[in-house]
Amino acid sequence: MKAIVFDGEVRLDEVPRPTNEDEALIRVSLVGICNTDVEIIQGYAGYQGILGHEFVGVVESASDQSLIGKRVVGEINAGCGKCDLCLKGDPRHCRTRTVLGIVNRSGAMAEYVSLPARNLLTVPDVITDEEAVFTEPLAAACEILEQLTIGPDDNVAVIGDGKLGLLIAQVLAVTECHLTHIGKHPGKLEITAARGINTHLLNESTASEYAGTFDVVVEASGAANGFKLAQQIVRPRGTIVLKSTIHGDVPFDAAAIIVNEITLIGSRCGRFENALALLEQQRIDVKSLITQTFPLSEGVEAMRHAQQPGVLKVQLRP
Amino acid sequence: MKAIVFDGEVRLDEVPRPTNEDEALIRVSLVGICNTDVEIIQGYAGYQGILGHEFVGVVESASDQSLIGKRVVGEINAGCGKCDLCLKGDPRHCRTRTVLGIVNRSGAMAEYVSLPARNLLTVPDVITDEEAVFTEPLAAACEILEQLTIGPDDNVAVIGDGKLGLLIAQVLAVTECHLTHIGKHPGKLEITAARGINTHLLNESTASEYAGTFDVVVEASGAANGFKLAQQIVRPRGTIVLKSTIHGDVPFDAAAIIVNEITLIGSRCGRFENALALLEQQRIDVKSLITQTFPLSEGVEAMRHAQQPGVLKVQLRP
Repeated sequence: MKAIVFDGEVRLDEVPRPTNEDEALIRVSLVGICNTDVEIIQGYAGYQGILGHEFVGVVESASDQSLIGKRVVGEINAGCGKCDLCLKGDPRHCRTRTVLGIVNRSGAMAEYVSLPARNLLTVPDVITDEEAVFTEPLAAACEILEQLTIGPDDNVAVIGDGKLGLLIAQVLAVTECHLTHIGKHPGKLEITAARGINTHLLNESTASEYAGTFDVVVEASGAANGFKLAQQIVRPRGTIVLKSTIHGDVPFDAAAIIVNEITLIGSRCGRFENALALLEQQRIDVKSLITQTFPLSEGVEAMRHAQQPGVLKVQLRP
Repeated sequence: MKAIVFDGEVRLDEVPRPTNEDEALIRVSLVGICNTDVEIIQGYAGYQGILGHEFVGVVESASDQSLIGKRVVGEINAGCGKCDLCLKGDPRHCRTRTVLGIVNRSGAMAEYVSLPARNLLTVPDVITDEEAVFTEPLAAACEILEQLTIGPDDNVAVIGDGKLGLLIAQVLAVTECHLTHIGKHPGKLEITAARGINTHLLNESTASEYAGTFDVVVEASGAANGFKLAQQIVRPRGTIVLKSTIHGDVPFDAAAIIVNEITLIGSRCGRFENALALLEQQRIDVKSLITQTFPLSEGVEAMRHAQQPGVLKVQLRP
């Protein structure tokens, strides 16, 4: 089958179909390119193999016959199923987990992908393939609400207007909190503004204007400056959610974190169930985030395109 | 009156008594030297003036006559009394607060000290002066339990066997959690071991022995290495409490914090009420922490002594 493989460079390759009979085999319909894929080809996580972890597809074979022919998305963490964390129902932190297209498990930028049947969720009919591919990043946005209670009394800022920031702002808006979405691209902020979210274009006085203001700040820019701004605009005893990996030197002001009793929370993968429910209820606009769709055979060019300024979601169709 | 003043150097000085008639005037019986005092004379917080924030004394004058003659300790943060935070009952984070001997308010290393009457708490008779001076640092240890729920099912580590670490370990032991107190001074760890707490002498294999083990890790060493160890021994989705200010470069692994969904919580001043209750119930051994008591007139020498290796609490008697 055709697949987009990274082994030091990104290439379109011809590889064998997955053959693990303990798992379900899924024919991939559509796959999304995530910033993590871009980071992987820059050396993050040391992964080599088939890329991609955002997909929708149709089950071609599985030991559970009822799954065959079903349109599914798949949770990306596959736990051992036996350790304390897996038995508590959270394989996302299993110490020996594999992660689709990220840790020791072939990804979904291919004609077929394999996952344990327990990782699969059926996609309701009302959700299109183009939308279903957003289940994984949308679940990551929903994870914040699994970790924190946010409600109408909370004053919340989201920093970053990339794909993840746009999803997070929309997910948090569902809580009816007082929300400010801070970004530096007017065109991207238009997407959340169109959903009735208060947006703010970053400028020199943002930090002073909002100093010590927000109960919760979600850092989703992945930039050291974004984290610095988060520390400036969170209120005493407030919470900063670290949602986007920050590379390089991170400005961590331990004394201020202690004096102001700030809580910092790292946040990663969320449960697909919550994300599918939001998509089914059509509460999140994901279509405005799609910049372009390429055939899988042009995946190398698509990966390049995904890194261009102004580009949001790029999808691949096998 | 005599006072220990820092104005670039530490000296015994003759200064006027406090005269603020809106506040209570307290004759100081005993005052403790805290690591923060040592940090202040090294330039932390930019404070100049009378040092000291851990004291017990007797009220000499107050507009509330019933206070006069009472033996008291005093909360160190004095809020404006009018802002949103003060009105919510938490002047500890008032943006214009003064802090005894730390921010814009003369401290207690003196014959007299002045504080708003609302900051004062009467000391129960069963608590000696020597013990009462520990109310402030003990309250700081109790603050952790105001921020986090810790119970018998939790596996908790305290890193650091200085004064604060010794108090924190004893406070957390009251919750009946599974507790490990990690330090590098056998003589100091003996104090918590004598209270039935499991202690661990730091060695080269501590990080690997306890990798990913603890639900909660309290960093109370104030050392960058202590924070690094905390990040190594906390479990996925666990919590690190930053209790002791860390100076210099702090090793902050943002990617690991995100991937493992760690929560970091800065922790500062606690409520005196909880600390006084623990002292009254004699649940905390503070006497073993007292290394030496000096007369106030020898305060300069006492400050020097407090910085010697192996020395725990040094107290001054006016």
